Amino acid sequence: MKIGDQYYQSIWIDENDPFVVKVIDQQKLPFFFEIKDLRSVDDVFNAIEDMTVRGAPLIGAAGAFGMYLSTLEMNSLSNIREHLSNAARYLISCRPTAVNLSWAVNYVMGKLKNAEHTASLTKIAHDAAIEICEMEKENCRQIGIHGLKLIESISKKKKGKPVNILTHCNAGWLACIDYGTVTAPIYLAHEKGVPVHVWVDETRPRNQGAKLTAYELGQNGVPYTLIPDNSGGHLMQQKQVDIVIVGSDRTTRKGDVANKTGTYLKALAAFDNKIPFYCALPSSSIDFSISDGVKEIIIEERNPDEVTNVTGFAEGKIQSVRICPDDTVAVNYGFDVTPARLITGLITERGICRATEKDIKEMFSN
Amino acid sequence: MKIGDQYYQSIWIDENDPFVVKVIDQQKLPFFFEIKDLRSVDDVFNAIEDMTVRGAPLIGAAGAFGMYLSTLEMNSLSNIREHLSNAARYLISCRPTAVNLSWAVNYVMGKLKNAEHTASLTKIAHDAAIEICEMEKENCRQIGIHGLKLIESISKKKKGKPVNILTHCNAGWLACIDYGTVTAPIYLAHEKGVPVHVWVDETRPRNQGAKLTAYELGQNGVPYTLIPDNSGGHLMQQKQVDIVIVGSDRTTRKGDVANKTGTYLKALAAFDNKIPFYCALPSSSIDFSISDGVKEIIIEERNPDEVTNVTGFAEGKIQSVRICPDDTVAVNYGFDVTPARLITGLITERGICRATEKDIKEMFSN
Repeated sequence: MKIGDQYYQSIWIDENDPFVVKVIDQQKLPFFFEIKDLRSVDDVFNAIEDMTVRGAPLIGAAGAFGMYLSTLEMNSLSNIREHLSNAARYLISCRPTAVNLSWAVNYVMGKLKNAEHTASLTKIAHDAAIEICEMEKENCRQIGIHGLKLIESISKKKKGKPVNILTHCNAGWLACIDYGTVTAPIYLAHEKGVPVHVWVDETRPRNQGAKLTAYELGQNGVPYTLIPDNSGGHLMQQKQVDIVIVGSDRTTRKGDVANKTGTYLKALAAFDNKIPFYCALPSSSIDFSISDGVKEIIIEERNPDEVTNVTGFAEGKIQSVRICPDDTVAVNYGFDVTPARLITGLITERGICRATEKDIKEMFSN
Repeated sequence: MKIGDQYYQSIWIDENDPFVVKVIDQQKLPFFFEIKDLRSVDDVFNAIEDMTVRGAPLIGAAGAFGMYLSTLEMNSLSNIREHLSNAARYLISCRPTAVNLSWAVNYVMGKLKNAEHTASLTKIAHDAAIEICEMEKENCRQIGIHGLKLIESISKKKKGKPVNILTHCNAGWLACIDYGTVTAPIYLAHEKGVPVHVWVDETRPRNQGAKLTAYELGQNGVPYTLIPDNSGGHLMQQKQVDIVIVGSDRTTRKGDVANKTGTYLKALAAFDNKIPFYCALPSSSIDFSISDGVKEIIIEERNPDEVTNVTGFAEGKIQSVRICPDDTVAVNYGFDVTPARLITGLITERGICRATEKDIKEMFSN
């Protein structure tokens, strides 16, 4: 998608130097637009850890590129198999609960293990990483095509008045490689001239909505309004929301969705006000090994400093302010689980299905 | 209640100068503890407008003291009746939707109108303002006594394990004159040795939970944990919340409650998880003229800067940081309405009743 007048992906290989991976520094958005060079496995590890890159598909792609860079770090003394295994383990350890990261790293590892000549390892890893990027982009594009139909159908009913879409956190193109999951239907509708307007939840504690979703929608000309996470219920009661679309970090085989903390509250409000609530997700987020999300998904606790402090922009620089007494104890659960019974449907790359075990099974039977 | 080792009310008359009204500057809490002198009607108006004082009962009391100060501003040329009416109108205009403010100002005006001698106006206004303070304190104390029973009963079931109470915004002693509404049962339980722990919603956009509730609970030794507004749903799903207690800015005769934005989302989560959800309120918050809160209560829109910016403490001073792109449009609805069907009960100074027209009528029949 676009930043200013230029087209970007959120990760790419330097056109002038194929041994440099480039990413947009998402820690500094929307205040500064900076591109970071990743030249080593360590660089990738650090970029994931410090959230220079974030979002499940992007983290996966970064991990894959990390494996590519690891092939450049071998020397004549290296035990190749050990070197690659260590790199894979190291990269995965950075965010152990991120399903996409381990999946992508292991995917590249699988390709490397099958290599017949060690000379070709770099090319194999490179191609596998690019393949993952293209696959993620295509998944998003397909989610967009399917989700667009929902927006168009509401637009028709509203006789062309803007369709009000509420979203939480950032499941946009910045989190993916391009298009985004939640944002793909929105961008496609906007490009097609279907009037849309997005209510952007700020998404405390890290404010990915205020910082990233607002930024990317603005850069691509999509009308939006920023709201506190607390406002969605009131807006839904007052019929100011036509559809809610959120992402999914992990989806159980029964259709429960673990997503950014606060998603469940919006699902409850949508249900209470009979507003359709959809989760946009690539099928890679579906974990067929688990059934009951509330009981089985362990919710990651993040640093409480994200709760006690807010980072923003003042006096020309990025600054952090404390919002509570200095001895305050805080907790920071990163995600919550929305039970399938509150979800109208899942928008996947294969199409839209209800959030039930039967429908999910049918859609992903092969 | 206490700040450090000293007992305070949130508004009082200077013990050394009866013509000075003192308040704690709540804009600066929890970062700086400063007491402000109010010496004129203008001082009171400004203190309410810039939120040096906030919270329905405290705003009412401040308005009453404003009328007291207005009696000191008359001179021999004043048309007394006109002078007082102007002061009353001016004070009420500061927050026209604040029911307590107009009620308290009009209460003092009523007393002044009945005065037989103009010489006694100052004393009459003084006594009326003090009377309002004492009444608010007593209401809170009674709410505390009734609410304490709920906490004690949960404590008994939990065999003395801490009772986990979730609250939103600040309906604490700082918002009232003393005790608070929501906090009164909590303080009474704590004083009595019933173990309690409070989940404090930060309460975006103004963060009154993080700034004020956290501060006052901490100063009075009550264990608490600060959480983002997004976390409550997850905590309730995981049975980490035993009871939710929130305040009410306005209650309809059918028991709908308008309270700080985000309250409705917590009520939905409590209902979904079968957790008791109570509103603590003085009967003065009940507006018998309205029935359906969602349809009839007009929700005040506040300055969108409160959404796009967050105020906190850094480098020794209070600072504001922007959290979104600089051309971001935001909206800021101050309140939302929780329908009575989601409310387990109302804790009032007369006792606890269900949030139904019948029960409210019965409790307040006289």
